[in-house]
Amino acid sequence: MNNFEFRNPVQIVFGKKTEERAGELAAQYGAKKVLLHYGGGSIKKSGLYDRIVKSLESSGIVWAELPGVKPNPRLSLVREGVTLCREENIDLILAVGGGSVIDSAKAIGIGVKYDGDVWDFYTGKAEPQESLPTAVVLTIPAAGSESSQGSVITNEDGGLKRPVNAACMFPAFSICNPELAFTLPVHQIAAGTADIFAHMHERYFTNIKHVDLTDRLIEAGMRNIIHHAPRLLDASEDYDTWAEVMWTGTVAHNNILDTGRLGDWASHDIEHELSGMFDIAHGAGLAIIIPAWMKFVYKHDVERFAQFAERVFFVERDYADPEKTVLEGIYRLEQHFKRMGMAVRLSEVGITADSFEEMADRATSGDTATLGNFVKLDKESIIRILKLAE
Amino acid sequence: MNNFEFRNPVQIVFGKKTEERAGELAAQYGAKKVLLHYGGGSIKKSGLYDRIVKSLESSGIVWAELPGVKPNPRLSLVREGVTLCREENIDLILAVGGGSVIDSAKAIGIGVKYDGDVWDFYTGKAEPQESLPTAVVLTIPAAGSESSQGSVITNEDGGLKRPVNAACMFPAFSICNPELAFTLPVHQIAAGTADIFAHMHERYFTNIKHVDLTDRLIEAGMRNIIHHAPRLLDASEDYDTWAEVMWTGTVAHNNILDTGRLGDWASHDIEHELSGMFDIAHGAGLAIIIPAWMKFVYKHDVERFAQFAERVFFVERDYADPEKTVLEGIYRLEQHFKRMGMAVRLSEVGITADSFEEMADRATSGDTATLGNFVKLDKESIIRILKLAE
Repeated sequence: MNNFEFRNPVQIVFGKKTEERAGELAAQYGAKKVLLHYGGGSIKKSGLYDRIVKSLESSGIVWAELPGVKPNPRLSLVREGVTLCREENIDLILAVGGGSVIDSAKAIGIGVKYDGDVWDFYTGKAEPQESLPTAVVLTIPAAGSESSQGSVITNEDGGLKRPVNAACMFPAFSICNPELAFTLPVHQIAAGTADIFAHMHERYFTNIKHVDLTDRLIEAGMRNIIHHAPRLLDASEDYDTWAEVMWTGTVAHNNILDTGRLGDWASHDIEHELSGMFDIAHGAGLAIIIPAWMKFVYKHDVERFAQFAERVFFVERDYADPEKTVLEGIYRLEQHFKRMGMAVRLSEVGITADSFEEMADRATSGDTATLGNFVKLDKESIIRILKLAE
Repeated sequence: MNNFEFRNPVQIVFGKKTEERAGELAAQYGAKKVLLHYGGGSIKKSGLYDRIVKSLESSGIVWAELPGVKPNPRLSLVREGVTLCREENIDLILAVGGGSVIDSAKAIGIGVKYDGDVWDFYTGKAEPQESLPTAVVLTIPAAGSESSQGSVITNEDGGLKRPVNAACMFPAFSICNPELAFTLPVHQIAAGTADIFAHMHERYFTNIKHVDLTDRLIEAGMRNIIHHAPRLLDASEDYDTWAEVMWTGTVAHNNILDTGRLGDWASHDIEHELSGMFDIAHGAGLAIIIPAWMKFVYKHDVERFAQFAERVFFVERDYADPEKTVLEGIYRLEQHFKRMGMAVRLSEVGITADSFEEMADRATSGDTATLGNFVKLDKESIIRILKLAE
């Protein structure tokens, strides 16, 4: 086990009708004027917007608003938000939505407190030291951003999708009401639960030895999402199942599952190029990349992959040939994604081999020439993974 | 799943040599003068005291000290600490030790900020609103107090052992170095790991339905402590095993395993009378009470107990007679405690039936006439559990 530090100060307020406490909670954090940050009209249609506004009003809080966040949230809107917060003297940004809205709110939060261009944080030119407080009303369980210190933003100029992490970026509070997810379309349920699974999967494959507790906790979380996700396909108003999925999504990414170990994250990095270039949903991209990544790297540590297969998918161990156990585990994961109605090959979403070179180029063009920690991937390896996913 | 709030702001600093950062961390929290609070001479003999003092000095922090904390920490020393902190203008209390020292430090912390007698908090006469900051250098993985908002104090006047919980009672930071546990005697290892197990066990037995994620996480933690604890019996300097035990002990009690459910805690309450009256180690008392409690209540929810037996102890399910599965699970838990060298009957520790009436009386004398949430226990039930433990 590695030495580690762990602190996650986010106040989680979970359960039915909790969005009605938005005003009270914002007031607790000293907010007088809030920026309501959200995507499109769905929160108005559902009545969520009205409930939040009413809650703010009853706590004497005024607000400005910035809608228009799109999946793979854009830098241009973040810059607009920074300007707006300064002009309007906003003291708390309330993200109402899923990971894209939250990530956009976090970017605005650090941008407001920085003299330079907010994109500096995403290129590594500067590190976030301070943020305007952010808070969340979660509507899509997926990204885990409601409990993380990370944000991923896409710069439209070049389609660059880049992450940043800093201790000042935790939301102050996150309101998680599973009822708000009832209206999600099936493809978003599938992509969201794949993303939740991926956050645990990325942490699971590590070279650090003696991480038994976190192994077991991650396996517990992965089993839970695999168990519950398919139940949402034909029962999208099942509160208890949504509660399982939403809370698993938060725990998956609040970093307790990361303690003492070093996750891989190559699949995420490869997928960022995929959704950066082709604008497919992040979770949908992960369902394609992860099985291919597994096939490419499993020989690096057959026993860890066998542990995954046995403990997460209850594959009976083949003592004579543990690799068969591994391959059965990967097969069952692909079957799970298929059952969720997801593509598991690039060709199914219209991405062909002629873009592999460019994707691999872009993925390895940053500060580090290789991706991943479990197995270091160079450009050639990434192309081979994309071919396995073809 | 119940609606819930979850927030745990404790900064955990985990790993080798982390006690050398005590001064730096205290300084981060603005400390200028620290109260070193500890038990006996063992931290001086081991050199830990010197390392901490050196770390404080190098950060320009001065200190006063209050040693003498005993197991089942005493109210009289807490009162002494409150006076001392006021006289010396202490701005952070650094607990160096296990649960008793930490609980004593937390009690002093809330006592300093309160005009009345600190025991008021433990009788329910007042609720803690504010605390002097506390921090921890953990030497005994057991109580989980390094990451909890609770404190249990014994009033020598009547042997009353009472708990209190409040959001202001979380330590600011907790330094957890598994190396510091290397010198623990076997009986303390046994009692400590039983306490860790109990914190998960108490949360596991709940009547709240649809708590699958936390079920699975708790099972993961229970399996981990059952797996690792026996390895310490003949390998007490095995860092990796101690790291598993220490981190499991912290996670067991940081309340994430509690989210959305309502734990039982009757075994803890009964045990508090046991160790209040007879001054045996808390974990040793739990190893006796828990199996007896299980035997008394299991018919209330055979399937939950079967789930425990199957998932924690890998008992093969008896489909024709699930109660046999349950009893096998309880048997294996008792065998685990025995393997750890612990008594599993009151008679083994010299406690006889003539004290059962008084123990049950005291346990039901507080604000609530019954104990527990999974099954409500009245005085008669408690006597029957004590008889099962005889």
